[in-house]
Amino acid sequence: MSRPNTHASPFHHVKSNKTSQMPLKLERPYNVTVIGSGNWGTTIAKVVAENTREHPSCFAPTVQMWVFEEKIDGKNLTEIINTEHENVKYLPKIKLPENLVANPSLEDSVKGADILIFNIPHQFLPNIVNQLKPHVLPSVRAISCLKGFDVGPKGVQLLTDYITDNLNIQCGALSGANLATEVALEHWSETTVAYNLPFDYRGDGKDVDHRVLKALFHRPYFHVSVIDDVAGVSVAGALKNVVALGCGFVEGLGWGNNASAAIQRIGLGEIIKFGLMFFPESSVETYYKESAGVADLITTCSGGRNVRVAKMMAETGKSAKECEEILLNGQSAQGIITCEEVHEWLTTCDKVDEYPLLEAVYQIVFNNVPMEDIPEMIEELDSLTVFAKSENKPTTETKK
Amino acid sequence: MSRPNTHASPFHHVKSNKTSQMPLKLERPYNVTVIGSGNWGTTIAKVVAENTREHPSCFAPTVQMWVFEEKIDGKNLTEIINTEHENVKYLPKIKLPENLVANPSLEDSVKGADILIFNIPHQFLPNIVNQLKPHVLPSVRAISCLKGFDVGPKGVQLLTDYITDNLNIQCGALSGANLATEVALEHWSETTVAYNLPFDYRGDGKDVDHRVLKALFHRPYFHVSVIDDVAGVSVAGALKNVVALGCGFVEGLGWGNNASAAIQRIGLGEIIKFGLMFFPESSVETYYKESAGVADLITTCSGGRNVRVAKMMAETGKSAKECEEILLNGQSAQGIITCEEVHEWLTTCDKVDEYPLLEAVYQIVFNNVPMEDIPEMIEELDSLTVFAKSENKPTTETKK
Repeated sequence: MSRPNTHASPFHHVKSNKTSQMPLKLERPYNVTVIGSGNWGTTIAKVVAENTREHPSCFAPTVQMWVFEEKIDGKNLTEIINTEHENVKYLPKIKLPENLVANPSLEDSVKGADILIFNIPHQFLPNIVNQLKPHVLPSVRAISCLKGFDVGPKGVQLLTDYITDNLNIQCGALSGANLATEVALEHWSETTVAYNLPFDYRGDGKDVDHRVLKALFHRPYFHVSVIDDVAGVSVAGALKNVVALGCGFVEGLGWGNNASAAIQRIGLGEIIKFGLMFFPESSVETYYKESAGVADLITTCSGGRNVRVAKMMAETGKSAKECEEILLNGQSAQGIITCEEVHEWLTTCDKVDEYPLLEAVYQIVFNNVPMEDIPEMIEELDSLTVFAKSENKPTTETKK
Repeated sequence: MSRPNTHASPFHHVKSNKTSQMPLKLERPYNVTVIGSGNWGTTIAKVVAENTREHPSCFAPTVQMWVFEEKIDGKNLTEIINTEHENVKYLPKIKLPENLVANPSLEDSVKGADILIFNIPHQFLPNIVNQLKPHVLPSVRAISCLKGFDVGPKGVQLLTDYITDNLNIQCGALSGANLATEVALEHWSETTVAYNLPFDYRGDGKDVDHRVLKALFHRPYFHVSVIDDVAGVSVAGALKNVVALGCGFVEGLGWGNNASAAIQRIGLGEIIKFGLMFFPESSVETYYKESAGVADLITTCSGGRNVRVAKMMAETGKSAKECEEILLNGQSAQGIITCEEVHEWLTTCDKVDEYPLLEAVYQIVFNNVPMEDIPEMIEELDSLTVFAKSENKPTTETKK
């Protein structure tokens, strides 16, 4: 018996929404395509396909999932998914809905799509977007499940804006406290979807809006809150990985729960500051009230790649690169890329001093600054001047 | 070699404060008494005694600690503390500063005290306060390390206000992400001290103010932020224990990190709502920016009594009472008392529906409501009506 069944059981009697007035009506069912089929991509495709099948008045039941074709024991991964309804490579042991169709052709998978859901590794986005250009109409709407943003010479750019700029389609974001495997197993969790109605919004029932997105993603085991703040969701999703490295350091040093909680508190503060400084349109509530904010931060800091790499650095003295190779066989911990990008950007705009934790993580990862210095490095500039430095050295007791 | 030394080492070169201008000057050194000598009481007494010894211009080095006298192998606990400088019963293996003096007489311990630090179990407060009444001058200032508030017929009362009302002295609060043992071991952590200047404030250098409190509590391994919001600190300190029960339930059900993070997110939201509804003077920033807020919530939900009791309830089906007896030999998980008090108060003011998580925890603990219903019970009333209830039952796949 596969685990999801035992875990899904509590929700069998649960309805997705409490209120029942004014059911959603659309002029025609929308076609949905998921671009990406990794661990998280396949999980989101499962969620979406369960909903499209349940709501034929809103969505065409069949959901296309673009799969980067590979051979598994001589068989095409797409064939395996379409016959065994399981992504044996990236989401093994999870039964997928039969109306989820794996498609090896990117062009063919988006044919006639009204809604695109991007869920691929960050670094593949430019190439995918280029291939899609000739095949995507401006009337299409999109949701990005990619975490974070790009930092380049022109500053910090949201990946949702990158998609909008390059494909000329409106794009929102989905992010939350969502370890993929737990969602795939239908353990209860929450997520945040952020979407703004475009300038060419076609009107109620004629276009994608918050209610359509709720219908597409909300499940009894996957509770969705839909908001407007795309920037806030993206900033939180990117920076949390840097904070998680900090938690891994103090965990590896054996400093315990108080220290890890302190890193998360300071991290949340710097995430909010970064968001309000560089994306003034983002709302402080998103960071402390939404799943994509504080909850995703907590989940990410409780485990996962970034924590594991940083912890190993603390325990072994090995470099980030070495630890990544040992733990992630070639893959990378996103927080390491992000902390470097953020450092470069903050240096460009001379704001490094205002983000002591983000900078401390960068200095530890890239300049071998001892991680024992974290408390001193992140101690906030303090309006409460009390003693001359010399006067408050630790006591002999604490030295003994 | 005792562990604190190894763990304290990173901080030997660290100064407590970055800036060094305008050192603190007081008209005379203040006498400090700590009332209480349990695990947390002794730890705070250690912190304070380290600082009074370092800053003779501000504090009389000797710190009195009132100890409820008991016999350990026929010897008085106070004698053991004063000769071996270790609280062998409540904080074993931790060396205490020699200027920390254990005193079995409550009356004698507060003689001449300028600053009282209350750090005793909640339920002993009324009795202690009654004994202190004849011996405490109104010029004395106090800090309460007790968590939370009392809920009675006249509503929610802060323990700091209880102390002020009954002893006629100004009282602030200290609270933060502070598992006592980790602080005693000098693992780095943070805390929040909240204090308002009283109407009879005697002026700069002549009275306790934020800088004096910083000097008294801040250590290289114990970073203090001093604010005004006593109510916010107290509300967060009390309600976090109820949220921790919720985390214990989902942990015991095996629902994983996403679910625990969701409970903490929803809990933080209800803590903020409760604070702003019943203590409008409290500030939303305290809840998501201070150690006493989000950081203490995270630490408490990562372990401790409440989580353990709730987890056992989920795993064994035993009642809260049974689990408390098994795990805490007679002691109680504060969250259980608090969730009942809160339920009664919210019922009185007809606000139960606005706090679904706090109410769900109460119903599970006191009315055997199945904890698998948590997601349904706490799902927020949703402006995004999408489908009629009947239409969104889980699919056969999720049922299988």
